[in-house]
Amino acid sequence: MSANELRKDYLLERWVVIATQRRRRPTDFVKKQEPAKSGGSCPFCPGNEDKTPAAFLVYLPSKKGGIKRARDSDGFRHRGWLVRGFNNLYAAFSPPSDGGEKKRVRLREFLGEAVGAHEVVVESPVHDEHPGVASVGQLGLVVDAYLERLEALCAEPYVRYVSIFRNHGLEAGASLSHAHSQIIATPFVPRLVREEVEASRRFWKKNGKCALCDILEREKKSQRFIWENDGFSVFAPWASVNPLEFWVLPKKHQASPLEMKRKQRGDLAVALRVCLGGLKALLGDPPYNYGFHVAPDVGCCGEFYHWHVEVYPKLAVWAGFEKSTGIYINTVTPEDAAAGLKEAAEKEEKKIKP
Amino acid sequence: MSANELRKDYLLERWVVIATQRRRRPTDFVKKQEPAKSGGSCPFCPGNEDKTPAAFLVYLPSKKGGIKRARDSDGFRHRGWLVRGFNNLYAAFSPPSDGGEKKRVRLREFLGEAVGAHEVVVESPVHDEHPGVASVGQLGLVVDAYLERLEALCAEPYVRYVSIFRNHGLEAGASLSHAHSQIIATPFVPRLVREEVEASRRFWKKNGKCALCDILEREKKSQRFIWENDGFSVFAPWASVNPLEFWVLPKKHQASPLEMKRKQRGDLAVALRVCLGGLKALLGDPPYNYGFHVAPDVGCCGEFYHWHVEVYPKLAVWAGFEKSTGIYINTVTPEDAAAGLKEAAEKEEKKIKP
Repeated sequence: MSANELRKDYLLERWVVIATQRRRRPTDFVKKQEPAKSGGSCPFCPGNEDKTPAAFLVYLPSKKGGIKRARDSDGFRHRGWLVRGFNNLYAAFSPPSDGGEKKRVRLREFLGEAVGAHEVVVESPVHDEHPGVASVGQLGLVVDAYLERLEALCAEPYVRYVSIFRNHGLEAGASLSHAHSQIIATPFVPRLVREEVEASRRFWKKNGKCALCDILEREKKSQRFIWENDGFSVFAPWASVNPLEFWVLPKKHQASPLEMKRKQRGDLAVALRVCLGGLKALLGDPPYNYGFHVAPDVGCCGEFYHWHVEVYPKLAVWAGFEKSTGIYINTVTPEDAAAGLKEAAEKEEKKIKP
Repeated sequence: MSANELRKDYLLERWVVIATQRRRRPTDFVKKQEPAKSGGSCPFCPGNEDKTPAAFLVYLPSKKGGIKRARDSDGFRHRGWLVRGFNNLYAAFSPPSDGGEKKRVRLREFLGEAVGAHEVVVESPVHDEHPGVASVGQLGLVVDAYLERLEALCAEPYVRYVSIFRNHGLEAGASLSHAHSQIIATPFVPRLVREEVEASRRFWKKNGKCALCDILEREKKSQRFIWENDGFSVFAPWASVNPLEFWVLPKKHQASPLEMKRKQRGDLAVALRVCLGGLKALLGDPPYNYGFHVAPDVGCCGEFYHWHVEVYPKLAVWAGFEKSTGIYINTVTPEDAAAGLKEAAEKEEKKIKP
């Protein structure tokens, strides 16, 4: 009986037991397809625009073939949109009552008040156009919407960090099944990001290079490599906390996704489409979360922070041990996860090739 | 529209949004009672002792009215037990192959090998004798078993921390429904505990007293207070991460539960019975986890670390935001949680009074 492996995250002080003794194959997690619940009206579907707050981001098809940007007003809702962004009706963080006129201030001034923003990005007028099945063109618009909101929120004086994330499936916390993402802006840099930034800075000072650039090089040659295109590499991280977890990293060193040009944005859309489509095909549309990890300030840590997207399939329950120690147990090795996802992503890529 | 509250844990750098804007009452979480699945054989039920590894902890009723301690051997299983402890068949951590003969060593020697222990404590021969319904006498035996294993594992040269925890209900990670707890010993101090210890040390150095002793005093007078007896105080923590979360703290300053004498152990059994019974009555047997937080070494932080039990009802899903930032959103205020739990615990206390 060989011992389980204990692994530490690249950057965080986060330990995980890779439980090879109770090793499970990715396909052990195949989900029975539940028939989609129909009926009831979806507030995010076309025709129900008045059930949401006025959208400050509306992408409309333009007659010239491109996109026209618009915004709703209180009494008027655009129809025929491709992507919509508006405030979450149940916001966890909200703009300050003074409208953010104050200069950028320190956290202590906000103690006791969850100042920030909490927004929804409806990714498509089609209820089920989730990233794993979406057209690459549509996903490109979603990426554009993320970046537009990221830039706008970063400019707010009361914002120190912007978290872009997506919950897929009820078990992963998606209370509405219409394809959508969320964006939360916080008045301080979240702990996980701060620790990544600090560890990246230490690595950079010591080694004169970016930690994730270095990891990217090594993981490309490892059994954890999954997929790549011109702009992005995808791999299962060494100390995956979640079964089937994978990360999407820009190949070029970048601290923030705001540095992406047009071509690279398209590459991200393809990477998300191929890998989330692969995950869906492999396990039968499992619930998952993804989150962008970005530099808090473009100016401050450009040399050493490397933005990326982390995808966490929701296939296990964090129980008493995880919650009271911060140590995780993962029953799928990242190597097995990568082997399954690699095959699934390659098949998926062929499907979407024109 | 008043802003949500942002709160920080007493000790950890852990932030939570208390989402008063989408404030939910404890009773919003009442669970429909699902009929217990019967059928199938439970490996933890009496008669199936041979389906588990040999127990190294067996409490048998003694003819004099007390407890007789015993242990199984490879070919022999005791019957008629009250509590049993044995190795988890699917251990996350296992003793080193050299049997732990080496002196206590530093973590780096264990890198790559999940050395430690992973045990099960079957809490009762009665399948459903969970702490919320157990007899106080039976729960007292469970506490005794915890402490016996805690002491034994702390003495192992390869162990730096022992985590005692309980998963209740499938959604909280209990794969078997028979009343049981688990104990995991790790070769390093888990991050959450280390941070608590360090923050407690800083507080003690600065203020000349124990942080949690101080908090206990204040919470007793707050709207977050739930229940107390001679030995323990129970309250909903200021920055509860989970809806209906509560903590059970010894009133007397103690770094480790190993310092408890007989009377206080009984008080802990009563506190668990009353508060978990209250939680069950209030919400209809919701899933939950609890975990002991204890000083890693009794000798090292006796003055400033204060052991306790944290109970996390599993009523919400941590989604993309929580997982990628480490910031939490809780839709039940600790004050509302405490009001509900206080009433339920008081009723429960009357039920068990002789």
